[in-house]
Amino acid sequence: MNLLSVAILVFLSIFTVCHGKDKASLPNIVILFADDVGYGDLEVYGHPTSSTPNLTKLAEGGLVFTQFYAGAPVCSPSRAALLTGRYAVRSGIYPGVLVPTSTGGLPHNETTIAEIVKTRGYSTSMVGKWHLGVGENGTYLPTNQGFDEYLGVPYSHDMCPCYNCFYPNDPCWNTCDLNYTYCPLFNNTDILEQPVNLTTLDATYVQRAKSVIQRNANAGTPFFLYYAFQHAHHPQFASKEFRNATARGTFGDSLAELDWCVGQVMEQLESSGVLDNTLVLFTSDNGPSLRNENRGGNAGLLKCGKGTTYEGGQRVPAIAYWPQRIAPGRTTELAGNMDFLPTIANLVGATLPSVALDGVDMAPILFEGKKSARDTFFYYFTEPNPKYGIYAVRYNQYKAHYYTQGQQNSDEFNHDKDCRPSANRTLHDPPLLYDLDLDPSENYNLSSKEYSQILAKIQEIKSQFESTMVWGESQVKKPTSTAVEPCCKKDCTPFPDCCQCHRPSWSSSILSTLGNKDFAKLRWTRN
Amino acid sequence: MNLLSVAILVFLSIFTVCHGKDKASLPNIVILFADDVGYGDLEVYGHPTSSTPNLTKLAEGGLVFTQFYAGAPVCSPSRAALLTGRYAVRSGIYPGVLVPTSTGGLPHNETTIAEIVKTRGYSTSMVGKWHLGVGENGTYLPTNQGFDEYLGVPYSHDMCPCYNCFYPNDPCWNTCDLNYTYCPLFNNTDILEQPVNLTTLDATYVQRAKSVIQRNANAGTPFFLYYAFQHAHHPQFASKEFRNATARGTFGDSLAELDWCVGQVMEQLESSGVLDNTLVLFTSDNGPSLRNENRGGNAGLLKCGKGTTYEGGQRVPAIAYWPQRIAPGRTTELAGNMDFLPTIANLVGATLPSVALDGVDMAPILFEGKKSARDTFFYYFTEPNPKYGIYAVRYNQYKAHYYTQGQQNSDEFNHDKDCRPSANRTLHDPPLLYDLDLDPSENYNLSSKEYSQILAKIQEIKSQFESTMVWGESQVKKPTSTAVEPCCKKDCTPFPDCCQCHRPSWSSSILSTLGNKDFAKLRWTRN
Repeated sequence: MNLLSVAILVFLSIFTVCHGKDKASLPNIVILFADDVGYGDLEVYGHPTSSTPNLTKLAEGGLVFTQFYAGAPVCSPSRAALLTGRYAVRSGIYPGVLVPTSTGGLPHNETTIAEIVKTRGYSTSMVGKWHLGVGENGTYLPTNQGFDEYLGVPYSHDMCPCYNCFYPNDPCWNTCDLNYTYCPLFNNTDILEQPVNLTTLDATYVQRAKSVIQRNANAGTPFFLYYAFQHAHHPQFASKEFRNATARGTFGDSLAELDWCVGQVMEQLESSGVLDNTLVLFTSDNGPSLRNENRGGNAGLLKCGKGTTYEGGQRVPAIAYWPQRIAPGRTTELAGNMDFLPTIANLVGATLPSVALDGVDMAPILFEGKKSARDTFFYYFTEPNPKYGIYAVRYNQYKAHYYTQGQQNSDEFNHDKDCRPSANRTLHDPPLLYDLDLDPSENYNLSSKEYSQILAKIQEIKSQFESTMVWGESQVKKPTSTAVEPCCKKDCTPFPDCCQCHRPSWSSSILSTLGNKDFAKLRWTRN
Repeated sequence: MNLLSVAILVFLSIFTVCHGKDKASLPNIVILFADDVGYGDLEVYGHPTSSTPNLTKLAEGGLVFTQFYAGAPVCSPSRAALLTGRYAVRSGIYPGVLVPTSTGGLPHNETTIAEIVKTRGYSTSMVGKWHLGVGENGTYLPTNQGFDEYLGVPYSHDMCPCYNCFYPNDPCWNTCDLNYTYCPLFNNTDILEQPVNLTTLDATYVQRAKSVIQRNANAGTPFFLYYAFQHAHHPQFASKEFRNATARGTFGDSLAELDWCVGQVMEQLESSGVLDNTLVLFTSDNGPSLRNENRGGNAGLLKCGKGTTYEGGQRVPAIAYWPQRIAPGRTTELAGNMDFLPTIANLVGATLPSVALDGVDMAPILFEGKKSARDTFFYYFTEPNPKYGIYAVRYNQYKAHYYTQGQQNSDEFNHDKDCRPSANRTLHDPPLLYDLDLDPSENYNLSSKEYSQILAKIQEIKSQFESTMVWGESQVKKPTSTAVEPCCKKDCTPFPDCCQCHRPSWSSSILSTLGNKDFAKLRWTRN
């Protein structure tokens, strides 16, 4: 080998190192994000009557997490956490959730996963529930947050009047929120239909998801697909195929349709020839909405549910799937949806945003079977308040509750009184302390005397974290305005009922039900 | 074909039909019976920190039951139910459980699975915890109940003083029951060692189980192996390999060792070449012993635990495995351990005993993916009493509680007050009614008005069943006597401490702890 050859080789090596992975080898990223699906809701997490065969297949071929946390116990902040890698108090997505009249949304100076992967030439697509704001002229919609394209309902499908949940035209459990206009289905920043037809929604979502995969596979473009299901949030709905498809009533039907969508996406990845080069991440935004009783989810062996800082509120199912890179199995390592951003950024060779990140790279867990870089998790209540700060801290297997509080989503009649909305905020000094490895159900408070060193260590971690926490301006508390409410007809009257634009999928029998208050009062008798 | 040929063929056909399966093709039967393992304790039922890889493998290759019931909510009656196919009130195994001084036991006129398969030429072996009586001269031991051989501790290993639970000589959580003599390890009706060495017990059990399989495989003899684990009953114990083997503390270690035993049995079936011709049934005797707190099991999403007639008391994990005959998957069909007897009897072509059987043949579920013949299950409390009768009835997806009652095994400090021993027997008229398909956690009582027809149907089923129920004479209430307590040394003094016969596996350091009251007071500091 002469000197020139050596020089060329050295140059090529340096070039490769500097540029990292070349575009052709960049892996695709698919995030499948369920809504209000609790730790105990899937077959693989032990639910007796759910039917989720596609998620079971994903689990059997992937890595199942048993200690995986949503960044917050409710919708909007959990989604903010996932997309930014940061607790949502930083981005101002608190207290509670955004509504159709919110003038705020995920601030544009926040960096989303979509924006990060775009720097590496990714095509970025979102399908489904956004819930990080619409705002004036749709300024907070996904296409203004790093996504090339968006198809979906931009918030929860109960934030509107709802009538028709089950094929062909069976009513929803209740009327949902009659204060807002009909729920829109957006295509980018345009409204495709309003109200959205829930009985055909998943077919529409799946069609788009498959098209995204096929199109990018054909073009050889690496892609990021963020598919956030409306399922299994209240009001549960289902198309013809999944109506009464399971023993588990409406929730079971909704979850079964979600599962079908997962299967459709996986099949498309396979038939498009990109399955081997795609990281698929499945999880849920928060715990089960127990107040929906028989029509709500289930936290399994975990305490309470959605809205609380007990484990049932934030520990959720999670599966990572990538046959070429991830060994099938289970992991008890600590992880959370805020870890997606650094994991993905590092995986695709992108630069991390210059902000305080709360996520850590999951690569050691995913690809090497090693320990997590995460040993701590902070629990903020549904309505975070700087005055009270963090409600609970997990450090390794220990969890200390500084405050506990019940929440309306965790059921007014729960047998465990701690979960009920009537359980007021309670200060614990010394904090309640649980060993979650031994006691995932948070039943047995450890002796503060015997565990004084652990408590001291947790207090130190908490103080240090809170001393550097900068709370973003609340986006939720910004004034609301009907002027920003999505309406497919500009300046129509009478607003908001006039905001109707129907696609052919709306049958006349369904249309006749819209605005019919008697119909709205109907209850579907099957629980 | 001439007439003679036809006649011979007809004769052969009749002969085959009459004799059923010939001996060479008779399948082997292995029942793996866990102790106090709850619905939520295994990996495949969603426990976050259990380590049960062999049971996961069994589940992935077998049929997992999600609505499978132990015949009773505590040890002895559940075992009686399994072995006789009948509610234990028939055989007199009530109230509660048998103790070392019990003079009663499973009546000899009851027909066990072992006795049934023996009529078809099976070799029958039992390993492990019997708990259906010892009695005078061991009259109630397994070898007098249809088993050719027995190796095991004949009752719970806390029904004796206990000292050494973890290799090499770490103390048990507490002293167990100092009122009885040391727990014996029986070989047939002889005592092999006393006290039993818990840190080597599983190795001894596994060795015997493997020997049973190998020996019968070599001889071409069909065999029935009933392997009833001491795990994961209190006090949890483990050998060197499983000490601190999991994140789940003592219970996790105990369960991990159980899982290892399952793997050893499966490996032996495979290496002996009989895996394809063996039906393996795994389940547990009742729900978790919640009063053991961090050292107890977990009922997952089910209410309360051991001792109660809530789902947590009696719905247990269950897996059926037989690659040649059983398609892998999950079933929501109703089944229970009383169904083993008729299933096995029919499978091996044996005649059913001429008694009132409560079990039904599971063949449609196991081999044909069809519906269960069982649509009803009756729940008797830990202390059944003809005055109150059945506490709850399941009919299809509905469960009606006529009485509810807390129980000491379900935790004095349970967040759910219904589980606590202080929750006295409460009559419900109308009964509490739950739809277990929608509400497995028994949270949402259905309207007795709206479901009046269901309640009427259940009442009819209950009345009819109870009108024909014949309660056996209580074996548990028979006088107790130290004369029947197992002691390896005849007429020794001072009784019962003199009942010691040590095998070489007892190290001198362990022996020095026996009878040491100070040592007995030690608590293992790791929960």
